[in-house]
Amino acid sequence: MFPKTIAWKDNRVVILDQRRLPDEEVYVECQSASAVTEAIKTMAIRGAPAIGIAAAMGIALGALGIGKKNFTPFYQELSSICKTLKAARPTAINLRWALERMKGVCEANKEKGVEAVKGLLVNEALAILAEDIETNKRIGEQGKDLIHANDTILTHCNAGALATGGYGTALGVIRRAWEDRKGITVIATETRPLLQGARLTAWELTREGIPVTLIADNMAGYLMQQGEINLCIVGADRIASNGDVANKIGTYTLAILAKEHGIPFYVAAPLSTFDRGAKTGAEIPIEEREASEVSTLWGRCLAPQGIKVRNPAFDVTPHRYVSAIITEKGIVKPPFEKRLKQITGKDGG
Amino acid sequence: MFPKTIAWKDNRVVILDQRRLPDEEVYVECQSASAVTEAIKTMAIRGAPAIGIAAAMGIALGALGIGKKNFTPFYQELSSICKTLKAARPTAINLRWALERMKGVCEANKEKGVEAVKGLLVNEALAILAEDIETNKRIGEQGKDLIHANDTILTHCNAGALATGGYGTALGVIRRAWEDRKGITVIATETRPLLQGARLTAWELTREGIPVTLIADNMAGYLMQQGEINLCIVGADRIASNGDVANKIGTYTLAILAKEHGIPFYVAAPLSTFDRGAKTGAEIPIEEREASEVSTLWGRCLAPQGIKVRNPAFDVTPHRYVSAIITEKGIVKPPFEKRLKQITGKDGG
Repeated sequence: MFPKTIAWKDNRVVILDQRRLPDEEVYVECQSASAVTEAIKTMAIRGAPAIGIAAAMGIALGALGIGKKNFTPFYQELSSICKTLKAARPTAINLRWALERMKGVCEANKEKGVEAVKGLLVNEALAILAEDIETNKRIGEQGKDLIHANDTILTHCNAGALATGGYGTALGVIRRAWEDRKGITVIATETRPLLQGARLTAWELTREGIPVTLIADNMAGYLMQQGEINLCIVGADRIASNGDVANKIGTYTLAILAKEHGIPFYVAAPLSTFDRGAKTGAEIPIEEREASEVSTLWGRCLAPQGIKVRNPAFDVTPHRYVSAIITEKGIVKPPFEKRLKQITGKDGG
Repeated sequence: MFPKTIAWKDNRVVILDQRRLPDEEVYVECQSASAVTEAIKTMAIRGAPAIGIAAAMGIALGALGIGKKNFTPFYQELSSICKTLKAARPTAINLRWALERMKGVCEANKEKGVEAVKGLLVNEALAILAEDIETNKRIGEQGKDLIHANDTILTHCNAGALATGGYGTALGVIRRAWEDRKGITVIATETRPLLQGARLTAWELTREGIPVTLIADNMAGYLMQQGEINLCIVGADRIASNGDVANKIGTYTLAILAKEHGIPFYVAAPLSTFDRGAKTGAEIPIEEREASEVSTLWGRCLAPQGIKVRNPAFDVTPHRYVSAIITEKGIVKPPFEKRLKQITGKDGG
């Protein structure tokens, strides 16, 4: 069974602390929206869908903590909490999507009174979690025919149970192929600087017995050249209307490599990851994180002290490198724009 | 001044222990050929030209330790030492080149007697070191016009003073541009798994005040996409007759990225790196090193215990991705085969 990334328990948000995997399975208990914001910022929880769920639960927690009896001051305070949460990480659109959904619950139910709204917000956060797991299973179902018997599948970072409510997006498709006994093997790129591939994907797959081999990020080209990779599947942090995909730094490079070697490059993502407001990837903000994430590991410097560093956490893969996007509503192939518009029409972010 | 990678001192080989950089400047003193072999295997010294010099000095040390008075048994024992040294690392051709040059000295001077040959071997090893530094300065001179004012130059791994007798190949061209006050900036990829870019290139450039920015390997594509890289220069461990280049794992990926972005991709290497016996890169053996180099850092596991790992130490970049090869005798541009044959005719490996 896949790990429990996030749960709501006795009016607390319990988060599996991904910074400490694979060494320890430790949980962070958040009792306030600001504790959830901190968990998102410091990447105790990460992955676009998981961040969305955490944000929704953070809002629910925040709502419970507001003393105001009248809706207007209550909603003012809640909006301020939303704003702080929204700024926690700029690239993953699911964060904004979840916050807008939670605000929608407030607005649709304001005449029911603050206490009722609080209960509805908790229910909505729980619904977002439950739906996300179902969505991922549907993504797995939709994508299953893209995986053939004995395929070796390259994945980057972690788009697994740990990046979602459970089951995973890219790893959801992989899980489904494994359940279908297709004899697959996964190649996990370690994903510097924070090693989500080595620490999280390898851990998540290993504990379910799915064969996984770890490589450094710069080895993917070599394995493709040797004919050892059949396809790539990654997740996404935000997808623009034209199909450009923002995802973990290094994704763009893998997509170019895949194209150069004639290997399919698939993106698996729920509709909550689509940003209909962004025409192209150029409009997606790329978070640049602290230098120390690159220059140190476990508190120790791996380069000369004071070294200058660049640390973009994401990159944008132009749609021309993407073979197909696997959503819970079906597989979208190029040309993306029209089909994505249809599919995201009702439920898209 | 560039660091002293390797020196001959009182019949010992003194090697700057690159495994401990940038934390400590510690030297390994080798008193036997087997100690030198171990230093090469465990990468206390690395980089194709530096390995060649170390091998030559290892042979000289080995020769001094042979008690035989007659040439034939002496040469038999020395050949056995050569064989062990040659097997230390399979990809860098300079190792073989240096051993063949040392054996040539034995064969050309056998009638002078064993003691004289021992002295000549020591002199030859010292000559190889001195020539290598001169060669690198000539590579810098030859390549200087490829660097323009204010260029940002991407380099991978370490092809610097530390990879050679001194001054460096790729970093030799960069040093020359710096000496010419061209206002350059260097982007150093950290170069997983052993972090030669973060530990060695960043250290070597920083101590000379050459501006350097560290990135994780998977960030190069993003920076190229943003227009932040003007050109790439890397070293080589072996170059085939058709211009295919074996170099540190990840080089192939960078070359593909450079081509995709229309950025020149240069290889800087001495003629001792050319393997006239290899028609194409397919004939170059790729060393696969221990899993623990990928799955652990500083003795600590960064992935689940027992994880399966691939660890190819090199890859081959087909010549179609190489814009030019910078040698001490000039810049070779495509089509490579004929021109490389001319240039390596007399002095090539």
